Amino acid sequence: MANFGGHAIPGSFFFLFGVWLTVKHILHHYWRVHQPKRRQGTPPFLKKMHYFEGGLQIFAAFVGIMVEQFVPDGPHARLVSGGSWVKLMNWQHCTMYLYFGIAGFALVASTAIKLVPVGVDRLTLSMALFVEGFLFYYHVAMRPHLDAHIHTLLLVAVFGGAACSMLEVFIRHNIVLELLGAGLFILQGTWFYQIGFVLYPLSGPQWELEQHDNIMFVTMCFCWHLVIHIVFSIVCTVRFSANGRDIEIGMRNTSSASSSQKSLLQESEED
Amino acid sequence: MANFGGHAIPGSFFFLFGVWLTVKHILHHYWRVHQPKRRQGTPPFLKKMHYFEGGLQIFAAFVGIMVEQFVPDGPHARLVSGGSWVKLMNWQHCTMYLYFGIAGFALVASTAIKLVPVGVDRLTLSMALFVEGFLFYYHVAMRPHLDAHIHTLLLVAVFGGAACSMLEVFIRHNIVLELLGAGLFILQGTWFYQIGFVLYPLSGPQWELEQHDNIMFVTMCFCWHLVIHIVFSIVCTVRFSANGRDIEIGMRNTSSASSSQKSLLQESEED
Amino acid sequence: MANFGGHAIPGSFFFLFGVWLTVKHILHHYWRVHQPKRRQGTPPFLKKMHYFEGGLQIFAAFVGIMVEQFVPDGPHARLVSGGSWVKLMNWQHCTMYLYFGIAGFALVASTAIKLVPVGVDRLTLSMALFVEGFLFYYHVAMRPHLDAHIHTLLLVAVFGGAACSMLEVFIRHNIVLELLGAGLFILQGTWFYQIGFVLYPLSGPQWELEQHDNIMFVTMCFCWHLVIHIVFSIVCTVRFSANGRDIEIGMRNTSSASSSQKSLLQESEED
Amino acid sequence: MANFGGHAIPGSFFFLFGVWLTVKHILHHYWRVHQPKRRQGTPPFLKKMHYFEGGLQIFAAFVGIMVEQFVPDGPHARLVSGGSWVKLMNWQHCTMYLYFGIAGFALVASTAIKLVPVGVDRLTLSMALFVEGFLFYYHVAMRPHLDAHIHTLLLVAVFGGAACSMLEVFIRHNIVLELLGAGLFILQGTWFYQIGFVLYPLSGPQWELEQHDNIMFVTMCFCWHLVIHIVFSIVCTVRFSANGRDIEIGMRNTSSASSSQKSLLQESEED
Repeated sequence: MANFGGHAIPGSFFFLFGVWLTVKHILHHYWRVHQPKRRQGTPPFLKKMHYFEGGLQIFAAFVGIMVEQFVPDGPHARLVSGGSWVKLMNWQHCTMYLYFGIAGFALVASTAIKLVPVGVDRLTLSMALFVEGFLFYYHVAMRPHLDAHIHTLLLVAVFGGAACSMLEVFIRHNIVLELLGAGLFILQGTWFYQIGFVLYPLSGPQWELEQHDNIMFVTMCFCWHLVIHIVFSIVCTVRFSANGRDIEIGMRNTSSASSSQKSLLQESEED
Repeated sequence: MANFGGHAIPGSFFFLFGVWLTVKHILHHYWRVHQPKRRQGTPPFLKKMHYFEGGLQIFAAFVGIMVEQFVPDGPHARLVSGGSWVKLMNWQHCTMYLYFGIAGFALVASTAIKLVPVGVDRLTLSMALFVEGFLFYYHVAMRPHLDAHIHTLLLVAVFGGAACSMLEVFIRHNIVLELLGAGLFILQGTWFYQIGFVLYPLSGPQWELEQHDNIMFVTMCFCWHLVIHIVFSIVCTVRFSANGRDIEIGMRNTSSASSSQKSLLQESEED
Repeated sequence: MANFGGHAIPGSFFFLFGVWLTVKHILHHYWRVHQPKRRQGTPPFLKKMHYFEGGLQIFAAFVGIMVEQFVPDGPHARLVSGGSWVKLMNWQHCTMYLYFGIAGFALVASTAIKLVPVGVDRLTLSMALFVEGFLFYYHVAMRPHLDAHIHTLLLVAVFGGAACSMLEVFIRHNIVLELLGAGLFILQGTWFYQIGFVLYPLSGPQWELEQHDNIMFVTMCFCWHLVIHIVFSIVCTVRFSANGRDIEIGMRNTSSASSSQKSLLQESEED
Repeated sequence: MANFGGHAIPGSFFFLFGVWLTVKHILHHYWRVHQPKRRQGTPPFLKKMHYFEGGLQIFAAFVGIMVEQFVPDGPHARLVSGGSWVKLMNWQHCTMYLYFGIAGFALVASTAIKLVPVGVDRLTLSMALFVEGFLFYYHVAMRPHLDAHIHTLLLVAVFGGAACSMLEVFIRHNIVLELLGAGLFILQGTWFYQIGFVLYPLSGPQWELEQHDNIMFVTMCFCWHLVIHIVFSIVCTVRFSANGRDIEIGMRNTSSASSSQKSLLQESEED
């Protein structure tokens, strides 16, 4: 991970996941609002989205674990060698992927099987974020000042997201809470990019890691990233609130979750 | 900000905002209580107050950003100059104002548009306070003891307010919670003045920044500021609870939120 | 306060207050349970208990402030003298008493006046405990190890009580929460005595303030104090749950809250 | 406790307790789900399980206290001897056992007596975990790095469990919360074993207590333990969700809670 690409890949994943969650929650919210008698069940388009999301999480977690283990300088599934630990960093990443895979599995299971307790998907997602933050927390100690600070800010997004997901177990279908959780994923994603830009600049000079001004800027920059998400959420909300009814109609005519998603976005843009 | 005026201006804003919120929430509460069947909707006078409040927040945020950017020794919208950051303090203040502007925008939007999810205005206000506290937190490190302490106490009011606003997303129309949130704004406002008096005394000698007695006094003084708010809330509650019915009648005859507010206050004083 | 008596007086007050709250909440709980249709209102005997409690709080706070101010070596209502603060410790105690007085006032007001928002009495009690803990927190720094530790344990009881009272604003009439809150008052009371015994032993040698074993013992002792309260609550619950109906009958025949309280306790003991 | 066995015994207890709670909560959950009209009462098989669990807790606590006190090198019920404390470690363990005994007593009482307030059993369990964590917290200071770290991770499980049990007082019968609480007991149990393996290895060389890699591994290992529980919960849920109706039928034909428990497990395995 000690290069720009190593931060861009997870950043892209988290960013896209946050965008996906934002769209999904807003769609679900306006579907609920437009129901004549507030039907309780899950609409078919949402089920498809759940399957797609869960499947992708499982797939991505599996690929991630394989890559971390079997890259040329990876641990190749060995944990101990000659009395010392082998590539613990890779093993830690595998652990994180495993939890996101479990969260995906829980989402698929709770969508498919009616008897799975409500909220298990959110609990596992919360655990995945907690584990991510937990491993990061003991990971960032004893680094230069700016490096430690920029990773600490990441933890704000990670643990904030874990708290949101945990709350969603108890407070169901609260769109404000769901958007906040999705926003913290987007924030996490863009912040991974920011970390990459700061610690491994693609061009120009290295950042001075002990300069106070840099720390002040980075703190402020974190707040700006949050604005990006707020603006994005507002745009989504405004768009989808107007044509909530059209959404369901559009959903009925599409076959796969991903294509319906795309057609919906096109619809919105054509308005 | 490194003078008395720089603390008095935000202090006045927060103080007046807290007073406004106290009055608004108490009016709304007694309006609800006096409804025969506990009507759910927002009464017209409250909508006007929301528009006025949100509009003022947007306006004040815009003016604040412009002033911070284009004062003679401001950054003039440049962030980087000659390889170093330009006037980061001004940029940080702009970031804070931006968030309060967004909160104002959310309040106007959620009043005007029925489809905006309930609670978005509180979430954005909570975020604005969180961002304010967040930037302050990394701002107060490495100062003399009393200076750091007095700013830390401010953070108690700021983060307490953020927590209150966040809770209001989930616990709607709880007057006790709303008054606590408003009270923490008043506390923040008066405490800004206190910081100004302590760090930049208008007359008399400078305060000894490392003396233990001064820290003890300041801690106690913080508690006294809280009393001011409690007394104010009690006075408001007692006043408005008596003539709750009159409020709505008074409201119907007035045209703008600000004038109705004034006439109401006069009414109360004439009792 | 720097002697045994200075810890025994607040200790006795908090202990008796906790016992009173335990009895009051259990009486109220079983009154609710025995109502045929779960009447919502406050029964007359509870109103009397509220008035008595609130009145006593106001009276005790007033006396406390007067004593702290006008004892021979007190500040005699002067805050500054010759450029330095006068007897800040006494002023801090006055501040604490003031808050408990406000809590008593809020209890009386919310019992007497129907329009006072529900929960204000709990919010002010929570604030009183928060202020007490807040002033203590900055008070215990820079002491010998055992001294600091034993006061820190007190803070666990104080802030725990503040959190309980705050929760009671939102979760009304939950007997488990109410008993926990009352228990933390009892704990605070007995712990004040413990602090007195440890720091100012009535007989025998002084405690070694830096010895690790003493700290271990004190930590464990704190847990034992908690057991005392649990046993007391169980005894109360068992007693009053059996004769819940009798309570109301007994209440109807008595005139003042304090005498009814006594007669009730006698009744229970006569069973 | 300073050997492998001293960690294996509590570890086994907590592990089995967590497994028991997982099975109990899942059984209760599917019993509720399969009720035609969501009957509110406690089914007979659950009452038997409560009695068994509470009784065992009381018995185990009693035995534990006796053993700690009257082992050859124990304190033999003396607290002070010759001016110094006697075997405070044993006394601390007794304190912990006492609280778990109280929790068992509260469970039995709240099952047997209808008038005991709902939620008292969870509050006492939460207190028992809090006291355990509280005593541990002041116990682990000033140890080598790895030793302190591995005990700190234990505290995450202990205080997490205390928070879960406390939440269960207010959020009743939420299966996700109950499984999380049970899972944290399992985690605590397996982690006690892990501590034993790391600090007192049965074979092979001692662990390097200051090596950073060991700390990284232990942190990651903690997350793996959590996975064990998740997988176990999933297996239980899948098993019992399928034959929820059969459970009650099976329960009716059995006489004691423990034997019915076993027959149920056999049933599930025979499927």
